[in-house]
Amino acid sequence: MAEKKKLVEAITSMEEDFAQWYTDVVVKAELVAYSKVKGCTILKPAGYAIWENIMHELDARFKATGVENVAMPMFIPESLLQKEKDHVAGFAPEVAWVTQGGGETLPERLCIRPTSETLFCELYKDIVESYRDLPKCYNQWCSVVRWEKTTRPFLRTTEFWWQEGHTVHATAQEAEERTIQMLNVYADFCEEVLAIPVIKGRKTDKEKFAGAEQTYTIEAMMHDGKALQSGTSHNFGDGFAKAFGIQFSDKENALRYVHQTSWGMSTRIIGALIMVHGDDSGLVLPPRIAPIQVMVMPIAQHKEGVLEKAGALKDELAAAGIRVKVDDSDKNPGWKYSEQEMRGIPLRVEIGPKDIEAGQAVIVRRDNREKQMVPLNQLTEAVLAALEAEQKALYEKAKAHLESHIYEARDYEAFKKTIGEKPGFVKADWCGDQACELKIKEDTTATSRCMPFGAKLLGEQCVCCGRPAQKLVIWGKAY
Amino acid sequence: MAEKKKLVEAITSMEEDFAQWYTDVVVKAELVAYSKVKGCTILKPAGYAIWENIMHELDARFKATGVENVAMPMFIPESLLQKEKDHVAGFAPEVAWVTQGGGETLPERLCIRPTSETLFCELYKDIVESYRDLPKCYNQWCSVVRWEKTTRPFLRTTEFWWQEGHTVHATAQEAEERTIQMLNVYADFCEEVLAIPVIKGRKTDKEKFAGAEQTYTIEAMMHDGKALQSGTSHNFGDGFAKAFGIQFSDKENALRYVHQTSWGMSTRIIGALIMVHGDDSGLVLPPRIAPIQVMVMPIAQHKEGVLEKAGALKDELAAAGIRVKVDDSDKNPGWKYSEQEMRGIPLRVEIGPKDIEAGQAVIVRRDNREKQMVPLNQLTEAVLAALEAEQKALYEKAKAHLESHIYEARDYEAFKKTIGEKPGFVKADWCGDQACELKIKEDTTATSRCMPFGAKLLGEQCVCCGRPAQKLVIWGKAY
Repeated sequence: MAEKKKLVEAITSMEEDFAQWYTDVVVKAELVAYSKVKGCTILKPAGYAIWENIMHELDARFKATGVENVAMPMFIPESLLQKEKDHVAGFAPEVAWVTQGGGETLPERLCIRPTSETLFCELYKDIVESYRDLPKCYNQWCSVVRWEKTTRPFLRTTEFWWQEGHTVHATAQEAEERTIQMLNVYADFCEEVLAIPVIKGRKTDKEKFAGAEQTYTIEAMMHDGKALQSGTSHNFGDGFAKAFGIQFSDKENALRYVHQTSWGMSTRIIGALIMVHGDDSGLVLPPRIAPIQVMVMPIAQHKEGVLEKAGALKDELAAAGIRVKVDDSDKNPGWKYSEQEMRGIPLRVEIGPKDIEAGQAVIVRRDNREKQMVPLNQLTEAVLAALEAEQKALYEKAKAHLESHIYEARDYEAFKKTIGEKPGFVKADWCGDQACELKIKEDTTATSRCMPFGAKLLGEQCVCCGRPAQKLVIWGKAY
Repeated sequence: MAEKKKLVEAITSMEEDFAQWYTDVVVKAELVAYSKVKGCTILKPAGYAIWENIMHELDARFKATGVENVAMPMFIPESLLQKEKDHVAGFAPEVAWVTQGGGETLPERLCIRPTSETLFCELYKDIVESYRDLPKCYNQWCSVVRWEKTTRPFLRTTEFWWQEGHTVHATAQEAEERTIQMLNVYADFCEEVLAIPVIKGRKTDKEKFAGAEQTYTIEAMMHDGKALQSGTSHNFGDGFAKAFGIQFSDKENALRYVHQTSWGMSTRIIGALIMVHGDDSGLVLPPRIAPIQVMVMPIAQHKEGVLEKAGALKDELAAAGIRVKVDDSDKNPGWKYSEQEMRGIPLRVEIGPKDIEAGQAVIVRRDNREKQMVPLNQLTEAVLAALEAEQKALYEKAKAHLESHIYEARDYEAFKKTIGEKPGFVKADWCGDQACELKIKEDTTATSRCMPFGAKLLGEQCVCCGRPAQKLVIWGKAY
């Protein structure tokens, strides 16, 4: 019982120590284990099942836009990584190198992919000849490696799992449209499935991806007011195409360079799920992403007919497409409830001898603990409605939290005071000069999260230097 | 058109040069591309889509037996790999080593997993405490790396994709049952979905997995009579448990070692699919695994109503759960048919102006080119029946090929003559001495494929040395 006991021990309160609360949740909800290699974690069944659902949902959305999946090697020869100069400058310092294989020293070092732009470029160079071959929209699901100094489960690990989409197009316009299209796929997925509201925008040059012309991002706000970059979509223009020689003959038989994009979402998003919805009882999973949506809890299960009834209810709910299990372990109900809450299972259905006699069950929501007596002949309907209501409530709550924690600052003193004292984001005008971005970071540790789409300036002056403002920026401290 | 032209060029005949035929098919059916790293291939959309279907089917079968998925790191510290002596002896010579990360030389080399027994052992050591924690049945889908000298797409590549299941049990009996259970999952999957008949059996000690007590295998026969080991399931006994210290307290509170299994199937099986069913027109995919099951072919598609009708038929078939596309490219029908055949799409539906007028369509099977006129109001039904018939016919054909290419040999001269002259397997009795196994391999290049379940000896003497026979062995040349 030692392990089980630990599971339902109280975790650190989020108000007391948010970082410790996070660590407690990822361990006690059994999402990850630490491996013997520094910075590398193991995704345990409860954690991997969330990632499986994310993959399943996102993959269907990608395919609906014409994306095809492929698998690329994990190795990038050093000479290949070096072909695009901004890209190699961004990634070379944090890669892992294979130098020996099959008992011999390799003639050229191979890095383990930190991202695969260079590999896709090599492939596209070979398979794209004519405008008829365009566009190509490939994606892969894999893990990548970046040698990180400080790591935290999901948020920053040496190896992490993700998808990376890489597309090539005939025109700059088509590439830009694809870049925005995939950003919208991410944003819709976050809002509709993960119940996480996001802010869409463009990154400043300082924050954009190594080698990209433009990087677009979706930014989410965690419960502690910090930002988490949740998905990015990059427009490369023809920079990589020129470095790698990816050309096609157009309808007039003239040789042109392709225009490229890439876009990715990673297991990092599970960190966002935890930090947006979790509470002091543990994980809270929105029903649409929860691996188990309903746990049926037999009460006084030793009594005749209780386990059978619990099993029958499970079968009925499963037949309606609900992901459901029965907890028929020999622990007492209070213990089982704590476990179900720690694991973030959205709903429990309690059924005991008295309920059976009365022809009813009790359903309890994870998010607000709301209890509801339900006649057994209306159970499936009521469970579906409760799951739907919980999904919606989690989104509304997160949206209210986001909106109530975005502030505006029109001068630098107000900016510093707000960002220093209030958890959340601050909107402020910016001149476009990287010097101001760097100064803000140095003075406050906040970074520019994005220049949100469709935003208007608050006034006319940069919040930092007072020179004419160019862009409204959302600033925040970030994971 | 250059690329498209190459696609439908005739490929090498399988009777003329089977190896070249294989290479032609994998390239021209666009399953793989070669990467810049020796021995590493790229799975292109048509190849990866087959693997996706394999993963989908197998994963559901695993989960039905209680398996849970996890994700482990790709790195194994050198000291961890060395903990089980047979295991390290088997794998150390063919691993890739990471020696540098984040700009520094690592204090300990990390190998890229060639297989993950050692990582799972470390995890199980931490999470298994009591009999209540058992069994644990974990699996992961990932790629692994083995530094191979000679490589061929799917059959042997430096990096390949697979699943590896790793389980721990309280008793030796339970571990043995799980080992056989998973072998049966593989065998059923091969026969029911891939239409590949297999022989189930046990490996000799020489051929078993490094560190295993017993290795069970399913062996398939390729069109050229050679064997392909298609899936393996290993019983480790408590050898790894002792090396890694994986103990649990039983119901009487006594400390015991767990018993372990592992089992895997890889992208190698796609090589089997190609070499069992393919023909001189290219790939032949059984309907249940084919990413596209039906290609609708509009004839004279410039004529009014043809493309619309083709689209309507596609929608009708898709609504019945059939994976279907329309080839509305501007190539001529003969060209399109060759492409569909090269890609192994099981069925095509031809629809032109005359067909529309007559209220019919022509359906053509990929495997035997059988044509059938079908009234349009019976199309879905006819397509479903044709797919089912093709699935069955492919299995029957492969089974007849397997059965008609297994020979028996009762003395060594007959054995050498048969294995030297006739493509296929040879059954022969064996004394159990590895010396005979080695002599047979040296004399004939054939290896012991397995000791098939339930097989009786042909006579009383080892086919090689004449001493008393212990086991019937199936011998064959193998990929």
